[in-house]
Amino acid sequence: MGDSATNSPKKIVNGDGGFILEDVPHLSDYIPDLPTYPNPLQDNPAYSVVKQYFVNVDDTVQQKIVVHKNSPRGIHFRRAGPRQKVYFDSDEVHACIVTCGGLCPGLNTVIREIVCGLSHMYGVTKILGIEGGYRGFYARNTITLNPKVVNDIHKRGGTILGSSRGGHDTAKIVDSIQDRGINQVYILGGDGTQKGASVIFEEIRRRGLKVAVAGIPKTIDNDIPVIDKSFGFDSAVEEAQRAINAAHVEAESVENGIGVVKLMGRYSGFIAMHATLASRDVDCCLIPESPFYLEGSGGLFEYIEKRLKENGHMVIVIAEGAGQDLLSESMRSAEQQDASGNKLLQDVGLWISQKIKDHFARRNKITINLKYIDPTYMIRAIPSNAADNVYCTLLAQSAVHGAMAGYTGFTVGPVNGRHSYIPFYRITEKQNKVVITDRMWARLLSSTNQPSFLSPKDIIDDKRDEEESQTQLEMDDMH
Amino acid sequence: MGDSATNSPKKIVNGDGGFILEDVPHLSDYIPDLPTYPNPLQDNPAYSVVKQYFVNVDDTVQQKIVVHKNSPRGIHFRRAGPRQKVYFDSDEVHACIVTCGGLCPGLNTVIREIVCGLSHMYGVTKILGIEGGYRGFYARNTITLNPKVVNDIHKRGGTILGSSRGGHDTAKIVDSIQDRGINQVYILGGDGTQKGASVIFEEIRRRGLKVAVAGIPKTIDNDIPVIDKSFGFDSAVEEAQRAINAAHVEAESVENGIGVVKLMGRYSGFIAMHATLASRDVDCCLIPESPFYLEGSGGLFEYIEKRLKENGHMVIVIAEGAGQDLLSESMRSAEQQDASGNKLLQDVGLWISQKIKDHFARRNKITINLKYIDPTYMIRAIPSNAADNVYCTLLAQSAVHGAMAGYTGFTVGPVNGRHSYIPFYRITEKQNKVVITDRMWARLLSSTNQPSFLSPKDIIDDKRDEEESQTQLEMDDMH
Amino acid sequence: MGDSATNSPKKIVNGDGGFILEDVPHLSDYIPDLPTYPNPLQDNPAYSVVKQYFVNVDDTVQQKIVVHKNSPRGIHFRRAGPRQKVYFDSDEVHACIVTCGGLCPGLNTVIREIVCGLSHMYGVTKILGIEGGYRGFYARNTITLNPKVVNDIHKRGGTILGSSRGGHDTAKIVDSIQDRGINQVYILGGDGTQKGASVIFEEIRRRGLKVAVAGIPKTIDNDIPVIDKSFGFDSAVEEAQRAINAAHVEAESVENGIGVVKLMGRYSGFIAMHATLASRDVDCCLIPESPFYLEGSGGLFEYIEKRLKENGHMVIVIAEGAGQDLLSESMRSAEQQDASGNKLLQDVGLWISQKIKDHFARRNKITINLKYIDPTYMIRAIPSNAADNVYCTLLAQSAVHGAMAGYTGFTVGPVNGRHSYIPFYRITEKQNKVVITDRMWARLLSSTNQPSFLSPKDIIDDKRDEEESQTQLEMDDMH
Amino acid sequence: MGDSATNSPKKIVNGDGGFILEDVPHLSDYIPDLPTYPNPLQDNPAYSVVKQYFVNVDDTVQQKIVVHKNSPRGIHFRRAGPRQKVYFDSDEVHACIVTCGGLCPGLNTVIREIVCGLSHMYGVTKILGIEGGYRGFYARNTITLNPKVVNDIHKRGGTILGSSRGGHDTAKIVDSIQDRGINQVYILGGDGTQKGASVIFEEIRRRGLKVAVAGIPKTIDNDIPVIDKSFGFDSAVEEAQRAINAAHVEAESVENGIGVVKLMGRYSGFIAMHATLASRDVDCCLIPESPFYLEGSGGLFEYIEKRLKENGHMVIVIAEGAGQDLLSESMRSAEQQDASGNKLLQDVGLWISQKIKDHFARRNKITINLKYIDPTYMIRAIPSNAADNVYCTLLAQSAVHGAMAGYTGFTVGPVNGRHSYIPFYRITEKQNKVVITDRMWARLLSSTNQPSFLSPKDIIDDKRDEEESQTQLEMDDMH
Repeated sequence: MGDSATNSPKKIVNGDGGFILEDVPHLSDYIPDLPTYPNPLQDNPAYSVVKQYFVNVDDTVQQKIVVHKNSPRGIHFRRAGPRQKVYFDSDEVHACIVTCGGLCPGLNTVIREIVCGLSHMYGVTKILGIEGGYRGFYARNTITLNPKVVNDIHKRGGTILGSSRGGHDTAKIVDSIQDRGINQVYILGGDGTQKGASVIFEEIRRRGLKVAVAGIPKTIDNDIPVIDKSFGFDSAVEEAQRAINAAHVEAESVENGIGVVKLMGRYSGFIAMHATLASRDVDCCLIPESPFYLEGSGGLFEYIEKRLKENGHMVIVIAEGAGQDLLSESMRSAEQQDASGNKLLQDVGLWISQKIKDHFARRNKITINLKYIDPTYMIRAIPSNAADNVYCTLLAQSAVHGAMAGYTGFTVGPVNGRHSYIPFYRITEKQNKVVITDRMWARLLSSTNQPSFLSPKDIIDDKRDEEESQTQLEMDDMH
Repeated sequence: MGDSATNSPKKIVNGDGGFILEDVPHLSDYIPDLPTYPNPLQDNPAYSVVKQYFVNVDDTVQQKIVVHKNSPRGIHFRRAGPRQKVYFDSDEVHACIVTCGGLCPGLNTVIREIVCGLSHMYGVTKILGIEGGYRGFYARNTITLNPKVVNDIHKRGGTILGSSRGGHDTAKIVDSIQDRGINQVYILGGDGTQKGASVIFEEIRRRGLKVAVAGIPKTIDNDIPVIDKSFGFDSAVEEAQRAINAAHVEAESVENGIGVVKLMGRYSGFIAMHATLASRDVDCCLIPESPFYLEGSGGLFEYIEKRLKENGHMVIVIAEGAGQDLLSESMRSAEQQDASGNKLLQDVGLWISQKIKDHFARRNKITINLKYIDPTYMIRAIPSNAADNVYCTLLAQSAVHGAMAGYTGFTVGPVNGRHSYIPFYRITEKQNKVVITDRMWARLLSSTNQPSFLSPKDIIDDKRDEEESQTQLEMDDMH
Repeated sequence: MGDSATNSPKKIVNGDGGFILEDVPHLSDYIPDLPTYPNPLQDNPAYSVVKQYFVNVDDTVQQKIVVHKNSPRGIHFRRAGPRQKVYFDSDEVHACIVTCGGLCPGLNTVIREIVCGLSHMYGVTKILGIEGGYRGFYARNTITLNPKVVNDIHKRGGTILGSSRGGHDTAKIVDSIQDRGINQVYILGGDGTQKGASVIFEEIRRRGLKVAVAGIPKTIDNDIPVIDKSFGFDSAVEEAQRAINAAHVEAESVENGIGVVKLMGRYSGFIAMHATLASRDVDCCLIPESPFYLEGSGGLFEYIEKRLKENGHMVIVIAEGAGQDLLSESMRSAEQQDASGNKLLQDVGLWISQKIKDHFARRNKITINLKYIDPTYMIRAIPSNAADNVYCTLLAQSAVHGAMAGYTGFTVGPVNGRHSYIPFYRITEKQNKVVITDRMWARLLSSTNQPSFLSPKDIIDDKRDEEESQTQLEMDDMH
Repeated sequence: MGDSATNSPKKIVNGDGGFILEDVPHLSDYIPDLPTYPNPLQDNPAYSVVKQYFVNVDDTVQQKIVVHKNSPRGIHFRRAGPRQKVYFDSDEVHACIVTCGGLCPGLNTVIREIVCGLSHMYGVTKILGIEGGYRGFYARNTITLNPKVVNDIHKRGGTILGSSRGGHDTAKIVDSIQDRGINQVYILGGDGTQKGASVIFEEIRRRGLKVAVAGIPKTIDNDIPVIDKSFGFDSAVEEAQRAINAAHVEAESVENGIGVVKLMGRYSGFIAMHATLASRDVDCCLIPESPFYLEGSGGLFEYIEKRLKENGHMVIVIAEGAGQDLLSESMRSAEQQDASGNKLLQDVGLWISQKIKDHFARRNKITINLKYIDPTYMIRAIPSNAADNVYCTLLAQSAVHGAMAGYTGFTVGPVNGRHSYIPFYRITEKQNKVVITDRMWARLLSSTNQPSFLSPKDIIDDKRDEEESQTQLEMDDMH
């Protein structure tokens, strides 16, 4: 799938006091004279009593929240929610839902709530589930979805639609959408999937089709920028506590016991960081954003020796993408790519466990007893917890309201606690990462007492633009 | 405890574009020439690598987040976090912690993190735990607290300090603070407790003591205004799912089975609403904010009959403060007050269960089978979940940073995801409530299909000021 | 439902050394010349490799397990399991399943395994689920059951067939069985239900029908005699820990805190006793078998005062049927019967909580803070745990093997760890009870330090026959 | 540690009707004229009301429970429990406790209950915990134990005493026992540990010391013969459900998904078998006792292909010791021994996962998606569940009663539900294994539909003695 040569232009609106609105595309941008309809919610008994139900057309959500007396107002996004006018007649809607990439708690809840939202709020009756990810569009596996079919699925982990990773053919997908007469496409998936959604949107736009494309960002790693946090993250951090507890019990019960827990996080260490902060039993947390070294003064081995001498045991949490430079060096292996275009990572947990064992075997001074736990699949497969269930409901309903209102080529997500419509490029152009020169990471260092693995020079060299720092802070103080 | 006649004046700062800062008191407001010290964090290895660790003195957090191009900027609060200068020397600090009111998941985590924050970040060694709530100040029960003592307490429910409700003597408390040489007071508790904290602060100010008073708002009901949500709320909603599941299983397993679950919420129905939205097995959710009636067209009994005919069973969730008008009428009882000044509520769950049984017994048409579950104490007593643990850490550290920086008479809490210092009066002057003419409640009505119990006239009569609506929206879209 | 005047005679076989076999009825007892068929299991790939799969026709299970060198051998039961010859052709079988009485973890697992056992082991295709308990037979609600329908039901609490209590018409039930051509009846239920099954069996025998009646004993209270323990009991004791933990946390967090937990157990206190022994946080456990008194020396109030003085808090577990004599006296109420013929009990938990509050309110010396928890429905509604799932599988398969082999009028259950066929009268003639002069209760007294509430005279008056003591010991040492 | 050349003789008592008692050693066997004392329990308020508290001196427990009319009575063991006379004065007792080998749920509960049993029942005040397993005896790490220290430890996983594996010096251990004046030794551990205990006992006997040695068998694998089941087994099977659920969700959510779960079981597959039977989501269970093969007709690969075609996904559970012959062949590696003398096993889970991937990669027909889960440490480290807590209490108290009564060189455990004293040699001479030609394994085959991997010839060749079959049956029907 190549990037379309001619992407649609960004929609930027400027206002007073430095106000900037980064708007999302709308079907009317490229299809003239589209008819509109009154929102059927105004006749819905549940909603008709709600005075302020419809979102004001010019409501925007401010991204910058820590301000000074004279700060410029900065970037805003369009507020999500139901509009008084919709661009689809209920009978006309033919929606489809597809889930791509790895499992994440909450996928089934989002599916359920898109179906129930379309059905109960807008009276939509034609909803298809595409099986097995993007490829399912042209492999033609579909499931008919309705509120009854999805009634209990939020209590199960996984995705009832199945999923897959990797390569797909944009033209074939849009052909399939066109052939089936689908006019609303809901796409759940991570970084790569949202990039795919963006290309699908561009192709649909190029063909001039009245098809709304809505992305619901899915990443258990919380590595999607702009939005406050991703669904399933809370559930994952909660479940990770089990593995950390087990590592702690195992480590405590033997002399010089070391418990190593690998957690998810290819490019960002949010799960590892939050699980560590929530648990308080962790002595060292290693994440992709914070380079570390093993040997010598200030290195990991020195710290392990120190903790074993002081405490007799220790627990290490390592994110799956941490220490990749050291690992590559060890492997002397060419970089390989997996089907999704992610760097194919060797298992860093097994690697670091072996390195630690080798180090102490060489030195003879301390006989260590290391236990390695990889709870990844046990975490991914749980059903979402209550907080994620409510969050998934809002995500799904926001996506439905957006598509019905004619918006397209957008991702939905909370910005400072308000659900917003965000252009694809803002979600995919970079990843959300733990900023290790910010306060949350300092809290972690203070909690674990681990070395920073940084020299003062590193700190000075760290160059971040203002906005990145802002993004970081959202997660920083959110919980 | 009467309100002090001479409260200290509000600190309001105005800026351009309608910018308003509602600031909190500072020790230097009433004590001249206080010495300051460099923040010891700048020599702390964990923090010294953090470039942006110290909060800018003029950082503020914006309360209004949904804006229009030309909106006035509105109310702001002082951003929480460490300052470069502190008003206490580490050796000089003598802190105390007290917990008041009912149990809430996370109390022990906050206690732990205040102790660890004071100790690890600021090198404080004198920390007292006051036993048994406010009264403990003059009953002279205290526990010496240090990081070792509190190491594992976050894994247990309840509060290691014990708690109590109700009346206390402000003068005696301040005498005790003065006698013991305490100069930082951390007070965990709800509405009434924060009012008490405000009065204690005023008395301390009147006496001109260098004592910082910091409130950490505790309410499992999430009924504290301004802040995004209260700690323990997520844990409580999660645990409530068990009771709803049980009610659902019981109801499903008999003919015309009705499961009734009473949840916490004296004056606000947030737990009931979120538990209902997370569960999806609830057919009717009754909260204090939404008046309802039993008999006649559009009433509860009619709805129950309808659901039983359609489905054969149903689940009702009722907040403890719902239907108080009906209950009082039933009871024909004078209003009584419990020790904390809360209206003493009869058990609405038992009451409504009886009412439903009586109704159907009278009518003979349907033999119902009602099971009533009250999980209140089972919910309150659980340890906090991972998300609440991280949240409690930030709350505690923000409080510690504020007190060290000389702020006093403040409550700490997140506003749009950023921790802020908020004057007591903003927290205590009213309660956070579910706004039943807003979208979250509409979502609930749509999810349960229950009647709104509102006549069109009710809606028109509903008068809310702009700010209340804003407050509501925070919770609205937060999750 | 009256007892049939002409019950079939007991089948007793005597042997050497005091050997007694209490056998169960067989279809051939009253129907001559029944054809037999080779057991289809011998062609089943899973079973054909098993050398010792078929139970020897004269295998019996010994009830007395603690013996002396010259003990008589005592009572034995027929061993459960597949026989080489069966009395039903697979195509001929038309089975039905009914669940009666209150919920108990494991009901769905038993249903699932009867269906899968009949289907996979014996190739049976006609299986009906009777909805809503005994009354469902003539109310004609049925569900077609097959392995696909029941595939996931063991992960849910409750019973997919629904249940009901109380009165039913034996003649109508047998008419329905006869009219539908049902020839195997599986009945899940407690004491009263098994009595009903016995009467149904007698009526079927009287009419000379080739219908096998198999009872699967269900009682969350573990009050069924002869068998080692009842399914769901382990799951219930496990879940009860949550309530006890909550009561403990609540009690610990206030001055003179008392946590009261009511657990199931109308006539026997096994759940309360095991939950207390497993938890170790309980200071007093009150069960139906152990009379207690409130006032005076050696009474409950004296003990509460003592514990509060020593410890500052306490936890009381009370079985729902404890203290009924005191309660009746309080109520001065005529004995009422509920629909199942059980004595209608007032809620002893609310009653004792009020009594304790009244006592301490009168005395003024101690202000107590009592929290009452009733987790009954939250316990009953959970899915069965892993141990119960395996146990339910064996129960269901034993019942299926028995019915296929032509046995009828029997209950199935483990005796000293071996599944056996037991005549109805042995299950229904009395209830399994905690013997308070045996060791398990002594362990409990030792664990809680509570008073025995017994005078020496009580002990001497306690008259138990040898067999009752034997029955008790099974549970005694089982876990 | 070599086997002592001169083991003490077995104590066999014969009686009428083929009655055999395999008795345990007693201090009076080798020390003449030991004084006895009345059991202090007779003055204990909790026990003094119990009529039948003391075990009759000639109570025995029958091992054979499925009998025929004229069966010989067979083997019996001495019944556990308090005796009227004890061989230690309370003040004289100096007990120690040691835990050896890998973690198992319930270790802390057994420690707690030995301490509380000695203290509350017998008034013993001198109790030492030996740290870090057998080696701790001469490394001289000890902890003073009393009821207060152990009060809450049953709520935590692991062992507060720490543990270790492998080599130790019997002479040094007995020197340490002698030097410290210890006269009761409680040893918790598996197979190898019990062998060690046996040698320690022989050395103590050789030296003529008045020291009682009591073994409490610990094996999460349930591979100890004679006893009904080992503590922690139920908890382990319960926790294993999580991993199987996760594997099922992962497998279901992708095309041709295969979930592989490795469970504990070096030499016996009880955990894998019970977890499979409890879960019902497993398509294939591989255990050490049942040899299997990969290629060709009736092999694993063929079965996997079949299941994927039928169902689209499958779950495989493999015990850690399964397929060792295939693995060794793959590895072409000499047999290595780990420190405990166990065969050092390569990780069979990783191995079989790779084999399956390789197979399908070669064949191109099916692209599989395999997820491997190893929950071993997460299972071992949990606290024991309620049923195991009660079981551990009985084990600990039985051990204490036995040692106080002067028995030594014994292991304690339930035989047909009655706790008994069993000579070491019966516990260590062989291992409890799943008998794959018995009914429990047939049930499993029937539940999973997996091939038996057996040819008819295998079955005929299977030679088992009568007793082994009997042993198997205990577990067979127990749950």
